[in-house]
Amino acid sequence: MTLFERLKAACADDWAAYVDHPFVRGLADGSLDPAAFRHYLLQDYVFLIHFARAYALAAYKADTLADIRAAAAVLTGIVDVEMDLHVKFCADWGLTRADMERTEEATANMAYTRFVLEAGHAGDLLDLHVALSPCVIGYGEIGRRLAADPTTRRAGNPYWPWIAMYAGADYQQVADTAAAQLDRLADAALTGVRFAKLAGLFGKATRLEAGFWQMGLDRSL
Amino acid sequence: MTLFERLKAACADDWAAYVDHPFVRGLADGSLDPAAFRHYLLQDYVFLIHFARAYALAAYKADTLADIRAAAAVLTGIVDVEMDLHVKFCADWGLTRADMERTEEATANMAYTRFVLEAGHAGDLLDLHVALSPCVIGYGEIGRRLAADPTTRRAGNPYWPWIAMYAGADYQQVADTAAAQLDRLADAALTGVRFAKLAGLFGKATRLEAGFWQMGLDRSL
Amino acid sequence: MTLFERLKAACADDWAAYVDHPFVRGLADGSLDPAAFRHYLLQDYVFLIHFARAYALAAYKADTLADIRAAAAVLTGIVDVEMDLHVKFCADWGLTRADMERTEEATANMAYTRFVLEAGHAGDLLDLHVALSPCVIGYGEIGRRLAADPTTRRAGNPYWPWIAMYAGADYQQVADTAAAQLDRLADAALTGVRFAKLAGLFGKATRLEAGFWQMGLDRSL
Amino acid sequence: MTLFERLKAACADDWAAYVDHPFVRGLADGSLDPAAFRHYLLQDYVFLIHFARAYALAAYKADTLADIRAAAAVLTGIVDVEMDLHVKFCADWGLTRADMERTEEATANMAYTRFVLEAGHAGDLLDLHVALSPCVIGYGEIGRRLAADPTTRRAGNPYWPWIAMYAGADYQQVADTAAAQLDRLADAALTGVRFAKLAGLFGKATRLEAGFWQMGLDRSL
Repeated sequence: MTLFERLKAACADDWAAYVDHPFVRGLADGSLDPAAFRHYLLQDYVFLIHFARAYALAAYKADTLADIRAAAAVLTGIVDVEMDLHVKFCADWGLTRADMERTEEATANMAYTRFVLEAGHAGDLLDLHVALSPCVIGYGEIGRRLAADPTTRRAGNPYWPWIAMYAGADYQQVADTAAAQLDRLADAALTGVRFAKLAGLFGKATRLEAGFWQMGLDRSL
Repeated sequence: MTLFERLKAACADDWAAYVDHPFVRGLADGSLDPAAFRHYLLQDYVFLIHFARAYALAAYKADTLADIRAAAAVLTGIVDVEMDLHVKFCADWGLTRADMERTEEATANMAYTRFVLEAGHAGDLLDLHVALSPCVIGYGEIGRRLAADPTTRRAGNPYWPWIAMYAGADYQQVADTAAAQLDRLADAALTGVRFAKLAGLFGKATRLEAGFWQMGLDRSL
Repeated sequence: MTLFERLKAACADDWAAYVDHPFVRGLADGSLDPAAFRHYLLQDYVFLIHFARAYALAAYKADTLADIRAAAAVLTGIVDVEMDLHVKFCADWGLTRADMERTEEATANMAYTRFVLEAGHAGDLLDLHVALSPCVIGYGEIGRRLAADPTTRRAGNPYWPWIAMYAGADYQQVADTAAAQLDRLADAALTGVRFAKLAGLFGKATRLEAGFWQMGLDRSL
Repeated sequence: MTLFERLKAACADDWAAYVDHPFVRGLADGSLDPAAFRHYLLQDYVFLIHFARAYALAAYKADTLADIRAAAAVLTGIVDVEMDLHVKFCADWGLTRADMERTEEATANMAYTRFVLEAGHAGDLLDLHVALSPCVIGYGEIGRRLAADPTTRRAGNPYWPWIAMYAGADYQQVADTAAAQLDRLADAALTGVRFAKLAGLFGKATRLEAGFWQMGLDRSL
């Protein structure tokens, strides 16, 4: 079993509450309030900036050239490709880059991103990647699951492009690479005591990610 | 005008929402639900641990022996004195050290503490102290204001000891020292552009501190 | 006057000792012992890894998307392009990638790189870039000066390709970009007190860079 | 076998070169040039500041209240007690506090302290404590060994008070506590791969500590 699967199993309730959050169900059946989705998209732009910083921190904390390169590639991918893709995606929802740039960062956004970054500073590279994994690998799981689920509405579902993006081969590759890296780091560093600590970290990160969905639903700041 | 006063003025709405939060009003007139206060007290124990870590980070980031000593004194004060005082204070509310040690950290708690710590890593010592100031100096202001307010209920108000603690000479000295240090750091580093950035940081930290009150009211995790 | 020029002026003796170091003179007239240059090249490979980590840290510490992108571009350039160029350059000196990978890091190498990284953690982005500048901008100055100096030997000088690389338009652009970024950061953060601190940092970093040349000359570990 | 003993065994040559350095032998037989010792003492004052910062970083990186308290106690001990003791010790060698405060930090001093601090940032608390251990535990071993060695000169040896200080019960307790903490951290985090990485870190730190002795001998900056 991969470390990611073990962490999920250790935090099963938190995980279920995250991947099966009402926001996610609303994406699947198309019932999500578009205003909630727009709020989420705006916050996601701010999120991407701190997400990029997390990969910068990962590149700094790496102790092999391979790990530096892997983190640098994700970092560059985020700031040079993904952010523009996000802006384009948002344009379909009537949101402009200017809207995104003037978005006030929501508490739930700060809560997750700063938790991840601080966990990275306090611990080592494995801690940082475990804290990132509910997002990086979790979005892949959510996308894949929704795409495979026959009850997911495709035709006429305005959220289908979002689902298809995370279910697509490109993102699945990102998620698989992240899971493999977790295992590689765990090979070097995992002990029983450490697993318990990582599970604590993973559980908190997962709850904070669920809070990000909730922020979308509530359109809260 | 001190830097702290300038920051408050720049974030006047956020500041008012924090220092005049319904939780604070409930402390003043004694109407706060004791269950909300207990929830707050339990979270405050967890908070103190990360607050101590913030002063440890401040001691690390200091570039004068005086600043290292100042931060080390606060750090030691928290872990060797304040935490025990907190435990004693909580005993009067029927909470044991064991209750505190098994408290699950609330999102609002993580949100503020990790924001402060991460701001300290991302920036310099002034950024860190600005992020801490809504708490350190703000509690002094809240205590002083409530104690001076004739409408504050003293007799029979179960929250009066809490108010008296923060209004007392010891805590006021802590707050004054923190404000003076902010000014000392600002003397060396403040520019117009920097002030705008610090005000952004202060505003976010203040909103996250208001979120801590709200967490108490809502008893949320 | 740019911040970089002001820092050089404030640390004139240290700067002269660095840019006019016997190692540099040996490059200019071709008299440098090839064994010293090979030692330097091997250490420079290890240096590049920590140099990349410094730009990763800069990307993390940046508070604008433009600064994140700038640092990410340098980071990616180092690990995806420069390291391979370095390996190719070294092949002309009979050094293989395996030689580089098994190089024991010299004290002078650790001294400079860890100083830079730690200065970045302790302070802010400006501190980090000031600590990097004797290297990034300094190599550009050294290359340009040697290439412009009529006494520099070109024909038959085995070190001419090294000089030409740093005097070339590509590297000069890197150095100019770095100097401009220093000024942009200084616009936001420079005060008189701060300048004095930065000059102290710059002087130390410059001495440590001179130590890197000396390590080459001495072939020391 | 303690982790510290395992690390020493894995880096036996580096360890021998450090604990049996000519500087140490000169302390033992009293032959060390007093000018070298004074140079060392002045640098040691600067060292203590960064040593204190390392314990501040350890307090920040700790994830148990016990580890925060342990690091905070050492930090406070350094800045509130040891630095004054050092100043008093130095007074016997004709050095004033003003001499110490204007000491230019030597490269060997920066090399070790920044290496330790950066290792702490890059890795976790165990990495930080391993990097500190050649100093903290090593000085205890050196003091104990010299005090137990019949060839060590006591009468008329101006360095005997230095030896006696590190051989004394107070410092031995400090060293034992540090060794026990390493083992406690290792219990939670040690794997075979991790041990190899820690041994690499320990070896570098040990070589940098030997460099600190050499700096004393050479009176180098």
